[in-house]
Amino acid sequence: MPKLTPTTRTTPTRLPKRVDYDLELIYEILDEGLYCNVAYVQDGLPFMLPTGYCRIGATLYIHGSVGSHMIRSIEHGADLCISVTLVDGIVLARSAFHHSINYRSVIMFGKPFLVENEAEKMNVLAQFTNHFADGRWDDVRHPDDAELRRTAVLGIRIEEVSAKVRSGPPKDEESDDNWPCWSGVLPLQYTAGAPQEREDAVPGMVLPDYLKNYSRKK
Amino acid sequence: MPKLTPTTRTTPTRLPKRVDYDLELIYEILDEGLYCNVAYVQDGLPFMLPTGYCRIGATLYIHGSVGSHMIRSIEHGADLCISVTLVDGIVLARSAFHHSINYRSVIMFGKPFLVENEAEKMNVLAQFTNHFADGRWDDVRHPDDAELRRTAVLGIRIEEVSAKVRSGPPKDEESDDNWPCWSGVLPLQYTAGAPQEREDAVPGMVLPDYLKNYSRKK
Repeated sequence: MPKLTPTTRTTPTRLPKRVDYDLELIYEILDEGLYCNVAYVQDGLPFMLPTGYCRIGATLYIHGSVGSHMIRSIEHGADLCISVTLVDGIVLARSAFHHSINYRSVIMFGKPFLVENEAEKMNVLAQFTNHFADGRWDDVRHPDDAELRRTAVLGIRIEEVSAKVRSGPPKDEESDDNWPCWSGVLPLQYTAGAPQEREDAVPGMVLPDYLKNYSRKK
Repeated sequence: MPKLTPTTRTTPTRLPKRVDYDLELIYEILDEGLYCNVAYVQDGLPFMLPTGYCRIGATLYIHGSVGSHMIRSIEHGADLCISVTLVDGIVLARSAFHHSINYRSVIMFGKPFLVENEAEKMNVLAQFTNHFADGRWDDVRHPDDAELRRTAVLGIRIEEVSAKVRSGPPKDEESDDNWPCWSGVLPLQYTAGAPQEREDAVPGMVLPDYLKNYSRKK
């Protein structure tokens, strides 16, 4: 997959070695993440909300109630900044100064477009549902006309985007080589607990395979 | 602890029952989270970065290199929107429409102030280090004068803030009561893997207690 060309907004001023424009890496992060943060400007002030998303090809989709504050604020093409961050571990250096987090993050910029075609909208909602757990769409009741009308789906082209990654062990000053403390990385990841079937479950429903050994990693 | 009074920016237009102004809940979310997203406006456009933070009393602190883009953009008191989100589970409803995420999130607004007093700065950096793992500060080499000078510490008062929480089982339409699929919640949480000591470790260092059975929950 191609490398993108950085723009002013995706060019870092610090630690440029952590920044990447590789689309394969960017898609991998977006597909592993569960939610994003969407920032926009309202009356000159910053506003941000965490929300679900999914990716289809080179487009990221978000959705919401047609009456929601966010949708009404941005559906006509507001400038957005969207971020997805995956935490991989805590970097425990010998010096306080070099403590850090191992992470993979994506920051993207763009203006949303409203998905109005009904078949396209349904296709996005299928991918939304499968972004929770791959295969879920086949099992659930699909949106009816009223639900479709109440849901706004917005797409943002994945074009002005960068990934930022920190991985590996701590880096300290040579003068701290003998500092007497445990130093290394504590890996962190999302893990699933035991699935909790609802109390009013339909009797005899079996836990689907896509919820067994669940992992966000693809 | 008191309930805060909502402002225009912290009053939701949707799902008001999910919103809370209880400071105890807000502090709990902030103390459990590992990083925040900081959004600000640059030349009229939204910009956002994930970054570490810590809380001391009613103030949230972020830090960065004095030369970083973010610090230079906001250190003189830019309007910020800061969010912390904890994911607790995936809500697998019977209908695609009612799928959701169980989460606890905080959104806060404010202008940062620069922490210039050296003792106060050192105190914040101690809390920063302990936010990774409680007790870490006692083990590590503390910042020297040069590191202190290179680090900008910004505080934001936790005043204009709200928490948003979704918990519990899926809610579906009654007409879907008999839809034949597994439905419930798949709990998710950060768990720590086996600590990875650095290859150039000082011989004989013992894993500290605060890294054993590590959990972000307090």
